[in-house]
Amino acid sequence: MSDYTPKPENKFTFGLWTVGNIGRDPFGGPVRDAKSPADLVRLLGEVGAYGVNFHDNDLIPIDATPSERDAILKDFKKALADTGVVVPMATTNLFSEAIFKDGAFTSNDSKVRAYALQKTMNAIDLGVELGAKIYVFWGGREGTESDATKDPISAIKRSREAMNFLCEYALDKKYDLKFALEAKPNEPRGDIYNSTTGHMLAFINTLDHPEMVGVNPEVAHEHMAGLNFVHGVAQAMESGKLFHIDLNDQAFGRYDQDFRFGAVNLKSAFFLVKLLEDNKYDASRHFDAHAYRTEDYEGVKDFARGCMRTYLILKEKAAQWNADKEIQSIVAEINASDGSMDQYFGKYSTAKANALKAQAFDRNAIAGRGLKYERLDQLTNEVLLGVR
Amino acid sequence: MSDYTPKPENKFTFGLWTVGNIGRDPFGGPVRDAKSPADLVRLLGEVGAYGVNFHDNDLIPIDATPSERDAILKDFKKALADTGVVVPMATTNLFSEAIFKDGAFTSNDSKVRAYALQKTMNAIDLGVELGAKIYVFWGGREGTESDATKDPISAIKRSREAMNFLCEYALDKKYDLKFALEAKPNEPRGDIYNSTTGHMLAFINTLDHPEMVGVNPEVAHEHMAGLNFVHGVAQAMESGKLFHIDLNDQAFGRYDQDFRFGAVNLKSAFFLVKLLEDNKYDASRHFDAHAYRTEDYEGVKDFARGCMRTYLILKEKAAQWNADKEIQSIVAEINASDGSMDQYFGKYSTAKANALKAQAFDRNAIAGRGLKYERLDQLTNEVLLGVR
Amino acid sequence: MSDYTPKPENKFTFGLWTVGNIGRDPFGGPVRDAKSPADLVRLLGEVGAYGVNFHDNDLIPIDATPSERDAILKDFKKALADTGVVVPMATTNLFSEAIFKDGAFTSNDSKVRAYALQKTMNAIDLGVELGAKIYVFWGGREGTESDATKDPISAIKRSREAMNFLCEYALDKKYDLKFALEAKPNEPRGDIYNSTTGHMLAFINTLDHPEMVGVNPEVAHEHMAGLNFVHGVAQAMESGKLFHIDLNDQAFGRYDQDFRFGAVNLKSAFFLVKLLEDNKYDASRHFDAHAYRTEDYEGVKDFARGCMRTYLILKEKAAQWNADKEIQSIVAEINASDGSMDQYFGKYSTAKANALKAQAFDRNAIAGRGLKYERLDQLTNEVLLGVR
Amino acid sequence: MSDYTPKPENKFTFGLWTVGNIGRDPFGGPVRDAKSPADLVRLLGEVGAYGVNFHDNDLIPIDATPSERDAILKDFKKALADTGVVVPMATTNLFSEAIFKDGAFTSNDSKVRAYALQKTMNAIDLGVELGAKIYVFWGGREGTESDATKDPISAIKRSREAMNFLCEYALDKKYDLKFALEAKPNEPRGDIYNSTTGHMLAFINTLDHPEMVGVNPEVAHEHMAGLNFVHGVAQAMESGKLFHIDLNDQAFGRYDQDFRFGAVNLKSAFFLVKLLEDNKYDASRHFDAHAYRTEDYEGVKDFARGCMRTYLILKEKAAQWNADKEIQSIVAEINASDGSMDQYFGKYSTAKANALKAQAFDRNAIAGRGLKYERLDQLTNEVLLGVR
Repeated sequence: MSDYTPKPENKFTFGLWTVGNIGRDPFGGPVRDAKSPADLVRLLGEVGAYGVNFHDNDLIPIDATPSERDAILKDFKKALADTGVVVPMATTNLFSEAIFKDGAFTSNDSKVRAYALQKTMNAIDLGVELGAKIYVFWGGREGTESDATKDPISAIKRSREAMNFLCEYALDKKYDLKFALEAKPNEPRGDIYNSTTGHMLAFINTLDHPEMVGVNPEVAHEHMAGLNFVHGVAQAMESGKLFHIDLNDQAFGRYDQDFRFGAVNLKSAFFLVKLLEDNKYDASRHFDAHAYRTEDYEGVKDFARGCMRTYLILKEKAAQWNADKEIQSIVAEINASDGSMDQYFGKYSTAKANALKAQAFDRNAIAGRGLKYERLDQLTNEVLLGVR
Repeated sequence: MSDYTPKPENKFTFGLWTVGNIGRDPFGGPVRDAKSPADLVRLLGEVGAYGVNFHDNDLIPIDATPSERDAILKDFKKALADTGVVVPMATTNLFSEAIFKDGAFTSNDSKVRAYALQKTMNAIDLGVELGAKIYVFWGGREGTESDATKDPISAIKRSREAMNFLCEYALDKKYDLKFALEAKPNEPRGDIYNSTTGHMLAFINTLDHPEMVGVNPEVAHEHMAGLNFVHGVAQAMESGKLFHIDLNDQAFGRYDQDFRFGAVNLKSAFFLVKLLEDNKYDASRHFDAHAYRTEDYEGVKDFARGCMRTYLILKEKAAQWNADKEIQSIVAEINASDGSMDQYFGKYSTAKANALKAQAFDRNAIAGRGLKYERLDQLTNEVLLGVR
Repeated sequence: MSDYTPKPENKFTFGLWTVGNIGRDPFGGPVRDAKSPADLVRLLGEVGAYGVNFHDNDLIPIDATPSERDAILKDFKKALADTGVVVPMATTNLFSEAIFKDGAFTSNDSKVRAYALQKTMNAIDLGVELGAKIYVFWGGREGTESDATKDPISAIKRSREAMNFLCEYALDKKYDLKFALEAKPNEPRGDIYNSTTGHMLAFINTLDHPEMVGVNPEVAHEHMAGLNFVHGVAQAMESGKLFHIDLNDQAFGRYDQDFRFGAVNLKSAFFLVKLLEDNKYDASRHFDAHAYRTEDYEGVKDFARGCMRTYLILKEKAAQWNADKEIQSIVAEINASDGSMDQYFGKYSTAKANALKAQAFDRNAIAGRGLKYERLDQLTNEVLLGVR
Repeated sequence: MSDYTPKPENKFTFGLWTVGNIGRDPFGGPVRDAKSPADLVRLLGEVGAYGVNFHDNDLIPIDATPSERDAILKDFKKALADTGVVVPMATTNLFSEAIFKDGAFTSNDSKVRAYALQKTMNAIDLGVELGAKIYVFWGGREGTESDATKDPISAIKRSREAMNFLCEYALDKKYDLKFALEAKPNEPRGDIYNSTTGHMLAFINTLDHPEMVGVNPEVAHEHMAGLNFVHGVAQAMESGKLFHIDLNDQAFGRYDQDFRFGAVNLKSAFFLVKLLEDNKYDASRHFDAHAYRTEDYEGVKDFARGCMRTYLILKEKAAQWNADKEIQSIVAEINASDGSMDQYFGKYSTAKANALKAQAFDRNAIAGRGLKYERLDQLTNEVLLGVR
C-alpha cells in the first residue's frame, strides 16, 4: 500500500499563524486558546511537518521587553532543536497594528513608511537569526477603499523604493536571503496593489535587484480573483521566480477562506501538485491555511495532517497519470508533429518568414481533427477518483 | 455650458467589430444587418470618431479573392479619405476560425502555430498599409478547458517564440510599429493564459525585444476577474507600457459584456479617466464595446456617442476634482510630511539603515490620526453626481 | 438649492454596531475606542438619524449582571429621550460567541439550538421593551464549510422549527412585532443556508405564520453573489414582504465590505432608491455599514452623514428622471401598445387560447424595431452625473 | 469490479441541443456539422442514454413548412422507436429569435408577449405529443442590461400572468404535465429576473397553480452566482419542488460554461449526487452540457459517456460514504443528543417557552467541544480519491 507519511524531503511547512490560529473572524471571537510558539513547534513536530515559518510578531509580541523576547526565543529554539523542525521562511507583520491602517510601504504618511522599513529590517534580522533563507512580503494593507485617497502611481513608486532599500539592506548585511512577494487582490483593503502573481512578477522586473526577488503565490489569493492558479504558478516557475508557495484552498470570488489544501477543488490541486512535481520544484511547500473554527487542537492536527496527506496522494496520482498508457497515448497524439513545420520555428530570418508566407495550409483539414480532450479530461477525473 | 463634442485630439477610436457588431450571442442570432467596412467608417465619421481599428478579417473576409480584397480596400480607403477617419491600430483574428479551436500560437498542433504566424504576418502587412502604428494581440483561444490537455509551461514558451518571431518580422520590414498585448482571464476558453494585464507585463519582460511591446488593457477583461482596473493601468503607465487601451464596461465576475463606457460603474470609469488625463496619456482611447442587442443602427450611434460623451464628462469632472478646494485641502493634508523622515528615503546606505533602526516612533500617536477618507470619497461622489 | 438634510420621515436608521464599529478585521485589531450605546445614540442624534437598531449584545454584554444591565438601559433610554432617536428594529447576536461556531438554529447540537431559542426570546423581549416593531434574523453561522458536516435538509427543517416556535412566542406574548429574515451567501461560513433574498422568500412560504415574516435584504449580501439587488428587492416588494432594508455598498464577488451607501456603484444605488421611492416604501432605511478603518469618530460621522446625503441626492435624481421629458417620452414609446393584444391577456379562457393560436405575427417586423435603450441608459447616466 | 454502465432506471437524459451543439460561441463559428434530430437520438441510444429533451426549434425549425415538420417528426419518432430512447421533457426556445431581444413574457412590447404565449402553447402541444411529462421554462431573455429600460415590478407581474395563463392552458387541455422553472442570474442578458432557484421557488408560490409548478435547477447557473448548488437543490427537494435537474459543471463567477458533469469540481458534484440518491430523487437526471469545442462527434460521445459515468462513480462513492464506519461514527457523534433538550422542541407552548427561558446553559462547555469536521471532510476527500 501507498505510504502518505510526510518526509523531510517533502519540505512541508506551516506558519505559526496557521496551526496557531485561534479562530477569530470578522463575526466572532476566538474558539481556541492561544499556544506559545514553542508549543506550536511541538505540535508541528508531532504531525510530521518539516518546517515552521513566522511573522515577527507571531514569535515576539510587538511590545515585548528584551527579556521577554529572550525567553521566547530560548523556548522556541529549544523546541526546534527537540523536534528537528526548521525555519525556512520568515516575514513581517505589516498589517495588524493600527499604524498600518492605510498601508505600510505605500502609506500616505512618511512616518508610517519609515516605521515599516524599520520594522522589516528588524524582522529580517530575526528571521535570519533563526535560519530563514526566504523572506516573504505580503502587503496586506497596501491598497485603498477609494482611489480618491491614494495615487496609484505614487503607491507603486513607494513600494519600489521600499523593496530596493530592503534588498540593499540584505546585501549589505551579507544575508543569504531571497525575497518572495505575495499578491492578493483585496481583503482586508477594498483593493490591494499588485493584485495577482502576474502583477507582482511585472513589478519585480522594475526593481534594482530583480535577481534576488521572486514570488510566493497563494492558491486562495488567486482563487479570490477566479484565476487559474496553475497557470500563474507555471509563469513564475518558467521565469525562475517561484521562490516559495502557499498551499491552501478557496472557492472563487469569496472572502479569504484559507481552507485545508484540497478542501474545495481536488482537481485544481492535482494539476498544481503535478506542475510542481513534474518541474522538480524544490523549495518549501508551505500550507498557509488554518483549521475550521469548529475544531479544537485535535482538529488542528487533523487539519495539518490532511494538508500533507492530500499533497502526497495527489503526488502519487500525478505519477500514475504520467504512467497511464491511454493517457500518454492521447498526450503523444495531440502533440504529434510530422516535422514539416520545424523549418518555420526557432530564430527568425527573412527567408524563413518568406517561406512561411508561401506555405499552403488546408485550414479545414487541420481544423477537422477531433482532439480527444473530453476523453483526456475524463481519464484524468478517473485517475483522481481512483477508478483506474 | 460645457461642450462634450469629440475632437481629434481626444483620439477616440472604435473597432470595425464594435459598431459593426450584428448582435449575435451564444443564445441568439443577429439582430442587425451587416454593414460594409466603408459604411462603418462613414458611421464613425458621422458620430465624430477619430479613428477606426480592425482585425484582418473584419476588413477582408478570410476567403476573399484578390479582386474582392482590392475592391474592399478601395472602398475602405475612400471612406477614410472622405471622412478623415484614420487607422491607428490593427490586429489579427486568431480565434474565429475552427482551426484555432485549441489556440493559435499555443496550439498543440505545429501546423496551427505556423498558420497563425503566417496569418499574423499578412495581417501586420495589411495594418501597416493602412497606417496602423499599434498592433494589438488578443490571444482569445490561447488557453484550456482542462489542464490535462496542454502543458502550461510549453504554452508560455510557444507564446514567447511567436512573439519573438513577429517582433523580428516587424523590425526586418522596418515597420514603424509597436505591439500591444491584451489579456483576458477566460471566455471563450475555460481559462486563458496570461490572464491579466499584470501577467502580460511580466511576460513582455521575457521577450527578446521588450522595448517594442506593451499592453492593451481592457476594462471588461480585468473586471471579469473582479480586479481594480485603475491599479492595473497605473502599473502599465508607470512602467511605460500603456501603448493602447480598450474602454468599455462590465460587471465583475460575469461573461464578457462589452457595454458602453461608463454603463456599469461611473466611479471606476471616473478614476480611470482621471488617471489617463492626469498622466497625459496620449495614445488612442479605443472603445471596444458594442451596442445592446435591443438596438438598430440609430441605437448603435447612440452607443458610440454615449461612449465618447461619457469620457468627456468624466474628463471635465477630473479637472473639477483637481480644482476643488476642499478636496485638494484634504489631499494635501493626508500627504503632508514634516520632512523629518526624508533622511531615511532614497538611496540605501548603511548609515541610513542604522539611523532608521535607532529612530523612535510613537506608534499610537501616528495611528490615532483620522484620515478623512470617508469625507474625501463622499466629496468625490458629489463631484460625480454634479451636486458640488 | 436642494436640501439634503435628513428628516424623520426619511426613517434613516443605523445599528449600534455600525457607528460603533471599532475597526477590527480579520487581519488587524481595533482602530477606534469603543463608545457606550448611549454615546452612540448621541452621535446618531448629532448627525440627524431617525433611529437606532441593535443586537442584544451590542446593548447588553452577554455576561452583564442585572445591575449592569439596568445601568446600561437607563443610560440608553435617557439618550433616546434626549435626542429623540427611536428604536425601530432589534435583532439577536447568534454568531459571535464560540457556542455558535457551527450555527445556532441549525447546529447539529441540540443544546446549541435550544440555547439559541432561549437567547432569541430574551432578545425579543428586550427589543420590544425598547419599542422595536421589526425583529431581524441574520443567521450568520447557519451554514457549513463542508457539506459532509451537516445535512442540508435537516438544516432547513431545524430553521423552520425555530422560526415557527419564535413566531408563536411573539404571538403568545401579543407583541406588535414582525420578523424580517436576512440572507447572505457566505462569510463567516463557507456557505450559508438560504443564501439570497429569493431563497429566504421561498423559505418564508413554508412557515406556519408566513404573514408575520418578511425579508431584510442587504445590498452587500446580494452583491457578494453578483446579483442585481434591485431585482431581488422588487420581488420582495411585489409580494408584500419588504419589511426592512439594509443599505450599504459592496463590489461583486468579494468579502463583506459594508461600505457607505453609494460608495461603490452610484447607478445601482440610484435604481434602488428609485424603486423604493416610486413604490412608496415606508419602513426603515437602515444603513448597515461602517466607516473605513482609516477613520476616527469624526470620520464615522462623515460616513453616517454621507450615507443619508447620498440617499437624498439619489431620491432627488429619481424625481428628476421621472420628470425628464425626453426620458419619459422614450419610456412611453417602448411601453406603447396599440391595444390589439389586450384580448389575449388577463384571465385564461379556451376561446382566448384558440384566438391567440390563430393570430398571425410578423416576427421580423416586430423584431426590427430599435428600442432606444442605449439612449435611455445614457440619459440616465447624465441625470446621475448632473449634466442634464 | 464496479459497473458504471448507464441503465434506464438512472433516467439519464440529454437535450438535442447538448449533443447537437455545433460549437459556435461568441468568438467563433461552428466546429461540427449539424446532425438531424433523428441522428442525435441514435447517438444518444449508442451511448446508453435513457431520454432526449428538446426545445421546439431544436426539433422543428421555426420556419418549417407543415410537410417539413411532418417529415422531421416521422424520422424522429422512428429513431425513438428504434433506440428505445424516450422524451421526458420539452421546452420552448424563447431566446434565439430577434423578436425576443428584450425578452418574451416580460418584453415591454405586448405583441412579443402575446407571440411568446402562442409559441409556448404550440410547443407544449408538440412536447406532449412526443410524451413529455415535464415542461421546462428558461427565460433566457427575461431581463435587462439597464434597469432604466424595464420596470422590475411590471416584469414580475408579466411573468406571473404568462405562467398563470399557461398553467390554465395545460389544465384545459388535460395534459399530464408539470412545469419546471429554470433560473439563471445573467447571460445573455446583463441581469435575468428570478436570478436563482431560490427566487424561482418564491415566485412559484405567487402563482395561481403552484402545485403544478416546480423548479429545474442547473449546476452551472447557480455556480455563475458562486452559490452552493447542493443547498439550493436541497431547499427545492425539501419543499417538493424538484421536478427536474440540469447537471453539468462550471467555475464560479464565469460565463455559462456548460461543461461535462464533474469537469470542474468533483466534490460538489459528489455532494449533489449524494443528496439526490439519499433522498431518492426519481425524475430525469438531465445533462445540460456540451462537448468542448475541440471535439468531433467521437468526442461528443466521450463527453456524453463521461457525464453518465461520473454520475455513477459518484453514486457508488455516496454509498461507500454512507457505509464507511469511521465516517458514520463521526456523523453519529456530532449529531448525538442526550435527549435533555427534547422537551423544548416541537410545537410551541407557553409552558415550553417558560421552561426553556429558565434552563441553564454552560456556554463554554458546549462551545469547547471539537467537532471533528476537518477529519470528516478529509475522510470524504479520501473516499473521493479512492484511497479508502
